[in-house]
Amino acid sequence: MERFELYILGCGAALPTPHHFCSSQLLNVREKLFLIDCCEGVQMQLRRSRVKMQNINHIFITHLHGDHCFGLLPLLSTLALLGRTADIHVWGPVGLQSVFGSQIDYFCAGMTYTVHLHEIDHTTTSVILDDRSLTVTALPLRHRIPCVGYLFREKPLLPHIRRDAIDAFGIPLSQINNIKAGMDWTTPEGDVIPNHLLTTPADPPRSYAYLSDTLYTPELAPQLHGIDLLYHEATFLSEHQNLAQQTYHSTALQAAMMARECSARQLLIGHFSSRYTDENLLLREAQSIFPNTILADDRAPKPIDITTSRHVDISKAPLNNP
Amino acid sequence: MERFELYILGCGAALPTPHHFCSSQLLNVREKLFLIDCCEGVQMQLRRSRVKMQNINHIFITHLHGDHCFGLLPLLSTLALLGRTADIHVWGPVGLQSVFGSQIDYFCAGMTYTVHLHEIDHTTTSVILDDRSLTVTALPLRHRIPCVGYLFREKPLLPHIRRDAIDAFGIPLSQINNIKAGMDWTTPEGDVIPNHLLTTPADPPRSYAYLSDTLYTPELAPQLHGIDLLYHEATFLSEHQNLAQQTYHSTALQAAMMARECSARQLLIGHFSSRYTDENLLLREAQSIFPNTILADDRAPKPIDITTSRHVDISKAPLNNP
Repeated sequence: MERFELYILGCGAALPTPHHFCSSQLLNVREKLFLIDCCEGVQMQLRRSRVKMQNINHIFITHLHGDHCFGLLPLLSTLALLGRTADIHVWGPVGLQSVFGSQIDYFCAGMTYTVHLHEIDHTTTSVILDDRSLTVTALPLRHRIPCVGYLFREKPLLPHIRRDAIDAFGIPLSQINNIKAGMDWTTPEGDVIPNHLLTTPADPPRSYAYLSDTLYTPELAPQLHGIDLLYHEATFLSEHQNLAQQTYHSTALQAAMMARECSARQLLIGHFSSRYTDENLLLREAQSIFPNTILADDRAPKPIDITTSRHVDISKAPLNNP
Repeated sequence: MERFELYILGCGAALPTPHHFCSSQLLNVREKLFLIDCCEGVQMQLRRSRVKMQNINHIFITHLHGDHCFGLLPLLSTLALLGRTADIHVWGPVGLQSVFGSQIDYFCAGMTYTVHLHEIDHTTTSVILDDRSLTVTALPLRHRIPCVGYLFREKPLLPHIRRDAIDAFGIPLSQINNIKAGMDWTTPEGDVIPNHLLTTPADPPRSYAYLSDTLYTPELAPQLHGIDLLYHEATFLSEHQNLAQQTYHSTALQAAMMARECSARQLLIGHFSSRYTDENLLLREAQSIFPNTILADDRAPKPIDITTSRHVDISKAPLNNP
């Protein structure tokens, strides 16, 4: 099955530390690369992940706090120095243009490609990207400044052809696309072979949502129902809930509550406050009400495969992000 | 002797690579910390070096290409988040205010300390800082955009007291400062003990200069005569001299010629183009005319001690930066 993979490039809060970069992820949907948030050092992390930076065409910024966007300008600059020619689209809430417009003009002067800055209405849900293979929806989050989450939903996939049936009925190659699209097959003798004998059902489309930084926002749950993987910030433990509330962040427990509200298949938590030397405390707090939770880990050697994460047997899952 | 040490935080050119951060160094002059250039990720490198970031009061930017300044805003922001209250001074050529002023206002809004941006005349030599222990001089470099180098010169030090002589003549503690300042000592019997019997000569003041990015600029050599350590960019090998000329950079050979012109004690080269997988080629080219050359190495575990570098026995020096 084609890729639907998530690279964790950074998962710390506020400040980079010796343990974590700040917030950044890369989503690979069938070789389309989407960068989500853009922390300082993101280009180093992309290189480390052996991702082809030039294949990134869309960058989604949640909000204009430095730990989510300080790597944007260096990345855009590097792409120019490496000779990029394809346009790039940067999405983010109001302020994107005023904060980055003139800097891009200055540091990327004379560069060989165009940066399109798209400001999103952060007060409502809106589909911001809709192509053949997926939609990207911006979701209103609740943070100290305008902030949007992002939902990536694959479009319905086509059923699989049963090669044995095709061979048995001698169906020519030219008809394969029609059969994938749902047509029955009529033999030269006039017998109608129903489509369901020629195909196996399509894989269910996959989905991923990124909610950071935010207070607990259960009002978004209906739109995220049944999501394969939910990333939710879990800056604090419940014992620091007052602090979470004051700073418009969530606790690990609230992240888990959100995953439960959404009937998510799996929860990924991150944006860890550097006050916690043992992030397993955050993991255990979330797992107490949503067992299929994993920790974001920006030093993990491999991306998270969102397809196979559907089939994770929790009883065998290690406590840490594998 | 009090410290005069240089930390290499980054020594690559143009783009960060898996091998190098871009340009940044930290100079510790008797526990005063001066940051020179400020590449993306500099705060991670400062942490790795176990340097107390909050003790940095001056940041010197050579020019406004991203590989020399993309880490400035993240660093200033982090210092604010860590509760800094002391003012910080950022020095750089014309454009500093227009490029960074509004970004600092935005990202450091409500922060607990003040950033002073000082624009330097990049067309002439000028002393920009002059305190009890050192002077910092800006030097006009020749690059594609306004660019300044920096010369750090310790002020003359006081002679050392000869404790044996002090004891022998029974000189009271209250007179030590006078004797350090050059006074003779008159015994109760009226004998005058000349100062040179009571002291040993002061250590010669130490000096460091940072020249990057630039074409070969021999016109600066008189001001740098006898410098202890000269950092000079060596982006290219001589075989790429045309490229160096076009982009206003230097070859390793030109860096070495400059060190020879200055009668420098030691040359440190950096700003390596990522085209060279073996930087020893650059080192050997420089050493061919200036043997006491070392390679900058941003993964070196220890700073370069500029005091002891005076006494390096070249014949025993390893080929790489120790």
